[in-house]
Amino acid sequence: MRSSSAAPAAKPPMRDALVAAAFRLFSEHGYEQTTVDDIVSLAGVGRRSFFRYFPAKEDVVFPDHERCLAGMTAFLAADGEEGEPVRRVCDAARMVLHMYTENPEFSVQRYRLTRKVPGLRASELSVVWRYERAMAEYLRGRFAGRPDGTLRADVIAASVVAAHNNALRSWLRSDGKGDAVAAVDHALDYVQREFGSPADPVDGPVLVGRESAPDDEGSPRPDDVLVLVTRRDAPLWRVVQELETALDRG
Amino acid sequence: MRSSSAAPAAKPPMRDALVAAAFRLFSEHGYEQTTVDDIVSLAGVGRRSFFRYFPAKEDVVFPDHERCLAGMTAFLAADGEEGEPVRRVCDAARMVLHMYTENPEFSVQRYRLTRKVPGLRASELSVVWRYERAMAEYLRGRFAGRPDGTLRADVIAASVVAAHNNALRSWLRSDGKGDAVAAVDHALDYVQREFGSPADPVDGPVLVGRESAPDDEGSPRPDDVLVLVTRRDAPLWRVVQELETALDRG
Repeated sequence: MRSSSAAPAAKPPMRDALVAAAFRLFSEHGYEQTTVDDIVSLAGVGRRSFFRYFPAKEDVVFPDHERCLAGMTAFLAADGEEGEPVRRVCDAARMVLHMYTENPEFSVQRYRLTRKVPGLRASELSVVWRYERAMAEYLRGRFAGRPDGTLRADVIAASVVAAHNNALRSWLRSDGKGDAVAAVDHALDYVQREFGSPADPVDGPVLVGRESAPDDEGSPRPDDVLVLVTRRDAPLWRVVQELETALDRG
Repeated sequence: MRSSSAAPAAKPPMRDALVAAAFRLFSEHGYEQTTVDDIVSLAGVGRRSFFRYFPAKEDVVFPDHERCLAGMTAFLAADGEEGEPVRRVCDAARMVLHMYTENPEFSVQRYRLTRKVPGLRASELSVVWRYERAMAEYLRGRFAGRPDGTLRADVIAASVVAAHNNALRSWLRSDGKGDAVAAVDHALDYVQREFGSPADPVDGPVLVGRESAPDDEGSPRPDDVLVLVTRRDAPLWRVVQELETALDRG
């Protein structure tokens, strides 16, 4: 029989308590000046409890990355060779974003900390590298046998990570204000336009991108550039038809 | 007056001697087991000489990166807003490649070492990150005021680094056999095709890429995909003319 007083319901799990204690001490005394002893003392647990959750002090700074990396790897592995692979890695990147946006205050706090401590910056680069490799390995599998398969895989994975981080860092620098999801969607859309397969171009040409947007009045600007992708064996009339539509002359 | 016996001509500079001694010890006893004292003892110099050249033991593993990074930054800064910026960062990447290829044996030896020692892997990621940031900063300057300027800059810099490293690592894994310059050129050409501006598309459309190459007989394959870039205000007849040529129906 469990007594209702035996387990204080409001108490966060020990792991969360350690993270909270650590970040409070990092912000008050600095990362370097804070020891694991200080952290366990504030959290009211023993040293062994700390090391059960975190191999070293720096790991408490990135408490959710291992879980997120495992989740992303599983998500990519669950893809049964269906679907557009570039879209898939973009969706994988959105899983990382979710980890940041589900706790904006903590994410901003950590961002400030990693800017200040070179050792943490290096740890973060290692974490980012592992995300990028997970994506690249998935793409290498999907592009196996294609010309330049590993090259494309590595470049696309790097592009997805760079686009994600460009939008994420803007959001973190603005103290978590604004819509991070929309910003990352916009950045990933750019990568998908550059690298994603156009929707099966079997019947004819597909307009996949424009270099610049219409001006304020919505009129096409003279320097607007169209990018048209077409199969070589598409009927010429279909290509011209698509072009006329794209050029607003149809 | 200089005596010909006073300066032994064949003796390498002290810095090179330290690097050579360090790598000999790393390969014989392992990186972790080798101390700075061991290195200076083998090189026949004092500890202070070591620290005059290298802030810490790990820096002796990457002795030329600071010089290379400074050279690349200067090369990018010397660009007077002329020339195609994507080509420029590809050329900057070739400067890094040159550092590796001018001493293949050392580069292969270091590659094997960084695979084995996680701390060195982290240092290498930091070095790579600094190259990538130098390229991104240059591109951000060139794309200033353009829509998504920083996004494009970051994605292209990441792509250039990923393409360069894809080819470089293949070469290092093959123990420095094969033509690294040709492999990196091929990889960077892929990035330039994806992101480089087509040669000023003022007069008409430009065929910028094909998704797959002709088959062995040189005939276009039915799944060959054409990518055509054109200004929106290009005369339709010019676009069709270019298309007919591209589709081999002109």
